[in-house]
Amino acid sequence: MNESLNQIGEREILNRLKRFMPIGQIEDDTAQISPQGKNILVNTDVLVEDVHFSDQTTSPEDAGWRAITTNLSDLASSGVEEILGITVGMIAPANTPWSWVEGVYTGIDKALTKFGGKVIGGDCSSGNQKVLAITAIGTVGKLRLHRSEAMDGDLLVASGPHGLSRLGLALLKKEPLMTNKPLSERLKAAAIEAHKRPKPPLEALTELMACKPTKVPWRAAATDSSDGLLNAVENLCISSQCQAELDLASLPREKNWPLGSNWDEWCLSGGEDFELILSIPPLWAKALIKAFPSSKIIGLIKSGPPKLSWNDGQEIKQSKINEFKHF
Amino acid sequence: MNESLNQIGEREILNRLKRFMPIGQIEDDTAQISPQGKNILVNTDVLVEDVHFSDQTTSPEDAGWRAITTNLSDLASSGVEEILGITVGMIAPANTPWSWVEGVYTGIDKALTKFGGKVIGGDCSSGNQKVLAITAIGTVGKLRLHRSEAMDGDLLVASGPHGLSRLGLALLKKEPLMTNKPLSERLKAAAIEAHKRPKPPLEALTELMACKPTKVPWRAAATDSSDGLLNAVENLCISSQCQAELDLASLPREKNWPLGSNWDEWCLSGGEDFELILSIPPLWAKALIKAFPSSKIIGLIKSGPPKLSWNDGQEIKQSKINEFKHF
Repeated sequence: MNESLNQIGEREILNRLKRFMPIGQIEDDTAQISPQGKNILVNTDVLVEDVHFSDQTTSPEDAGWRAITTNLSDLASSGVEEILGITVGMIAPANTPWSWVEGVYTGIDKALTKFGGKVIGGDCSSGNQKVLAITAIGTVGKLRLHRSEAMDGDLLVASGPHGLSRLGLALLKKEPLMTNKPLSERLKAAAIEAHKRPKPPLEALTELMACKPTKVPWRAAATDSSDGLLNAVENLCISSQCQAELDLASLPREKNWPLGSNWDEWCLSGGEDFELILSIPPLWAKALIKAFPSSKIIGLIKSGPPKLSWNDGQEIKQSKINEFKHF
Repeated sequence: MNESLNQIGEREILNRLKRFMPIGQIEDDTAQISPQGKNILVNTDVLVEDVHFSDQTTSPEDAGWRAITTNLSDLASSGVEEILGITVGMIAPANTPWSWVEGVYTGIDKALTKFGGKVIGGDCSSGNQKVLAITAIGTVGKLRLHRSEAMDGDLLVASGPHGLSRLGLALLKKEPLMTNKPLSERLKAAAIEAHKRPKPPLEALTELMACKPTKVPWRAAATDSSDGLLNAVENLCISSQCQAELDLASLPREKNWPLGSNWDEWCLSGGEDFELILSIPPLWAKALIKAFPSSKIIGLIKSGPPKLSWNDGQEIKQSKINEFKHF
């Protein structure tokens, strides 16, 4: 069962993939889904070997899982209600063993079983480098969340701790860690889990929608922190044309997260955290941190041209905001 | 304006792409579209440099155009009514000049302007090799076409001539042509156009839907011939569990197409023809070739386990059916 893809051939590859596709494109030129009268959200993400994942730290199953989380995280930060389906564009060198493809689809399948949605179709081709190009489609829920809805007076809320995925990567790559005290086993396990099996912030979204105080209007800005916390806050500020003031003492650190500037930097810009970064009225923010205890108020929004600063007035340098280098 | 992508950086790349995206994902994590209560069709195709296109024969504009046609052709062969939008996953080496990206998007834009739909979002990343991963979404029209609906007694109809794209490729690559007589200038121009700027069979679909005789029920099987005519007919036979009998004298050849077995082979298996291959009741087939003169009856469907043969009873060998080697 572990021949390479060019030994198997395209038709047999598709045959074997059928078990991962309950409905869909394999026996037809397209897949059909029913949004049942609702508007839909669409998101496409590409994951490229050695840019977004590497065989060194990511098993095929983990790569498939991560690809789903990346996509569903974007849907969550737009206010998705139901995930209708995903398509998978897969590219791999012709000599790639079948086990890699099977592993990726197993990871995709496990993630979808946990978070919702089905594989509805896709395409595959040989290429020099492994690529997963996923498109996810879902229905819009009660409130369509945009980046551009932040307003003066809002509080900034992170739906969970940040930096764990980056720490997990460091542990997997055995990078030297800037700390004298040993890390707790719990923290290490959480970090590796966050890197290998990140979760899209769908529960946080559900709680956000459920906990809105009735007197607060339906208006919220959101994005996800897949490219790092500061990057997400900056995106909100640019789209909403406003300023953010962050509280260094209130960074969304995991329990027992070490102190120190390089640990803060991982928290701020480690990336791949897949949490919601929200700008919402104070009453709603306070309701959310009560309803969803892993969430935390991390700062506030002020009017003015886009800028990020600490609450002591010090501007956060652009160089600190890791623009994720996909080029 | 012709720096490389890593000189420009991701944020500026996205900024420059905004003009191609009237609505959509750039300022948000996802794009939103409204299917207006209808069911939707979804299709994903990946195009990989040196597998599906090469700089030698395909300009960036042509690559973008072809990517759209490939996708919309699948939507057409499923019975699309309106193209709602497409997402573009683009991968290119970091040293790729901006002009390549701009060219691809210009080709995408021109094709969408002609055929319908808008770019609603996407993603980009560096990688070793250029890749376009396109997902197209459209609404289902009057009749959802499937591959599996062919029935004994149907006629097979091709919506247009086949082999032109393969001839166009040969001309562009200056391959030796197996003919003693010079090709007509008209044929050469049509072949190069078919290779560089192929069209999805949307007009044929419109005519098909419009010309159905009232006493014929709404039932038709369809696929597109993007991987060659025989491959398309075989796909219909496999999905519908039936046999096809083709008439060698009625191959869908272009006017002045040379005679000879290698020319027939290009017609049968050249690929990238993007025509509808239909299995429909005889009355409907006859109405279609009247309403849409480029279409042609090429054979018929019989019951029995999947098999392709000529109308003299000779079986068409599997080796003749070009399984397009994407691996």
